[in-house]
Amino acid sequence: MRTDLCDRLGIEHPIVGFTPSEHVAAAISRAGGLGVLGAVRFNDPADLAAALDWMDKNTDGRPYGVDVVMPMKAPTEGSFGDLRSLVPPGHRDFVEKTLQSLGVPPLPAADDDGVLGWLHSVARAHVEVALEHRPALIANALGSPPADVIAQAHERGILVAALAGRVDHARRQVADGVDIVVAQGSEAGGHTGEIGSMVLLPEIVDAVGASVPVLGAGGIGSGRQLLAALSLGASGVWMGSTWLLTEEYALGLPNQTAVRRALLAASSSDTVRARIYSGKMARLVKSKWTEAWAAPDAPEPLPMPLQNLLVGEAHRRIAAADDPEVVAMPAGQIVGRINEIRPVADVIADLVAEADEALTRLNTLRPS
Amino acid sequence: MRTDLCDRLGIEHPIVGFTPSEHVAAAISRAGGLGVLGAVRFNDPADLAAALDWMDKNTDGRPYGVDVVMPMKAPTEGSFGDLRSLVPPGHRDFVEKTLQSLGVPPLPAADDDGVLGWLHSVARAHVEVALEHRPALIANALGSPPADVIAQAHERGILVAALAGRVDHARRQVADGVDIVVAQGSEAGGHTGEIGSMVLLPEIVDAVGASVPVLGAGGIGSGRQLLAALSLGASGVWMGSTWLLTEEYALGLPNQTAVRRALLAASSSDTVRARIYSGKMARLVKSKWTEAWAAPDAPEPLPMPLQNLLVGEAHRRIAAADDPEVVAMPAGQIVGRINEIRPVADVIADLVAEADEALTRLNTLRPS
Repeated sequence: MRTDLCDRLGIEHPIVGFTPSEHVAAAISRAGGLGVLGAVRFNDPADLAAALDWMDKNTDGRPYGVDVVMPMKAPTEGSFGDLRSLVPPGHRDFVEKTLQSLGVPPLPAADDDGVLGWLHSVARAHVEVALEHRPALIANALGSPPADVIAQAHERGILVAALAGRVDHARRQVADGVDIVVAQGSEAGGHTGEIGSMVLLPEIVDAVGASVPVLGAGGIGSGRQLLAALSLGASGVWMGSTWLLTEEYALGLPNQTAVRRALLAASSSDTVRARIYSGKMARLVKSKWTEAWAAPDAPEPLPMPLQNLLVGEAHRRIAAADDPEVVAMPAGQIVGRINEIRPVADVIADLVAEADEALTRLNTLRPS
Repeated sequence: MRTDLCDRLGIEHPIVGFTPSEHVAAAISRAGGLGVLGAVRFNDPADLAAALDWMDKNTDGRPYGVDVVMPMKAPTEGSFGDLRSLVPPGHRDFVEKTLQSLGVPPLPAADDDGVLGWLHSVARAHVEVALEHRPALIANALGSPPADVIAQAHERGILVAALAGRVDHARRQVADGVDIVVAQGSEAGGHTGEIGSMVLLPEIVDAVGASVPVLGAGGIGSGRQLLAALSLGASGVWMGSTWLLTEEYALGLPNQTAVRRALLAASSSDTVRARIYSGKMARLVKSKWTEAWAAPDAPEPLPMPLQNLLVGEAHRRIAAADDPEVVAMPAGQIVGRINEIRPVADVIADLVAEADEALTRLNTLRPS
């Protein structure tokens, strides 16, 4: 089923897929959705440029998007060393002690870089790289991007999307010039608020008015959920967790064996919201790592971007240790329904077919 | 729109409304839904009997339901005095100190009764009273009722429903003989789990199979949400918070001025999940009372039924004080969308009309 947003973005299905993998993003676009590449993992903007160059060549000319993590106002930002000095030693001790008790060995070679995409300067560089390519959409995970970024995108005919977990945030984004609001319910993986999709989505649709398309995010993984989002007034859906268990996801990303086993095993009850990943509230798959941070002796997480500097190396150590019981991985509650690894094209075909089937079923209901 | 469940329950619209008010319950049934009277507030089963007698005469012969709060296994239960002795003095001191600091005066006369409906013996008496009337449905807020209760209901042709917040609970309920599962997402008011409706509802629908009707609960307050629940595979919806702001709600219940003002003012962000109401996790409207329990100096809530014994008198003092900033009231996130007090019949008519309209809109989407 096509919505007006499909025409506006030049896509076949009202399905937008967020993923850190350019292989997954390209496959989503090739299958008729809009693949949106998450830029935050690219510490060196040249690596993002290379990934987008590759996408330009591997999307059959179809549109794609780029997602950055950019606060509207630049936070105080020092050099990497300055920032590291703000991390309290007690927090470092807790992380080291926890990793040791969980059997996570140190990395073979010293490796100091956290994920720098949380830094405003790096996110700005990501935007510049994106503008040199041909994205149909620039999305910002932290709400409205700065005004000059919105202006530059619009000059190039690129739509701007922002994620909102509350209706007041959505209203402000539209006032700032954002074109598409992603209404992200609490069910979602990664940064997420407290309001469930069932309540949030129609609330934001009504608040921003008919001229602003809204994507439903949080808890979407099947065609019935796609149809439910459209029932609630969305122009499409924004999905994230689903793509973590696609065949294309493994390509070009570091070892994901433990993460995939953890995600395949997780039920819808096996996620938790916490500030431990980035400093902002985010939903992660439950593991011994998230449990350690929930224990009474654990320190309060630090604000963004300090928390990621604190845990960045821990995340890489955890990834290298490859233990499914000790993972640090954002995922939504829909992870309970993803129980096999499939090609992206099959996922999209099933979404579309199930939504059509569900609509046919609704049309068989008799009037009351 | 009619589902098979409408035929099974003998109702026009797939809308089940839970409410502590017999006036609201009767109005829901008269308007073509199924009004379900919450029994927990009736400390004296004779009062429940009187309310059901009244409903028998004021529902135009249409079906209604009764909701009890009954654990499957009887908990250890002593006399009222024995139970009270299990409440730690430090908890009592915290409650008294908090009420004083919030300006909530003592009750004029000593009044010792908590809400006894949480006690298994009282819930059993509620069931007996219900069985002497003509409910179409007995629902249990705490999962499967005891086997003999299910058997007695079935002997009389009464359907049994249970609330489930997780898929494993739903599976167990069906194995126990429950006829209808209420899949209650985290958005819901009162006792509620962690999984959002968007994820929980199709998960439970698939787990219990096509022969067991599932009602979507949590976040339902409009026709679009009703249609979304049906899209997700539900046979209908179970709504609670919406009825708190109907004209009929004030009839026959104690003073609700402060509660209504608090609910009318609340946004979807103004609820909180906590164990402070009954000892089990429940969503309440945020107030200075819920904030006091979230403060670092607050004690951990006690298990059910002790927490209600601890706060029962506080709830009555708070109600008598009638301050909209200090309320102790279960409500779901949908409370943000309920901004006026309306007759029940208008609410139901709008639900049905908006659902029809949303389905018409879905049918205008072009194929992709």
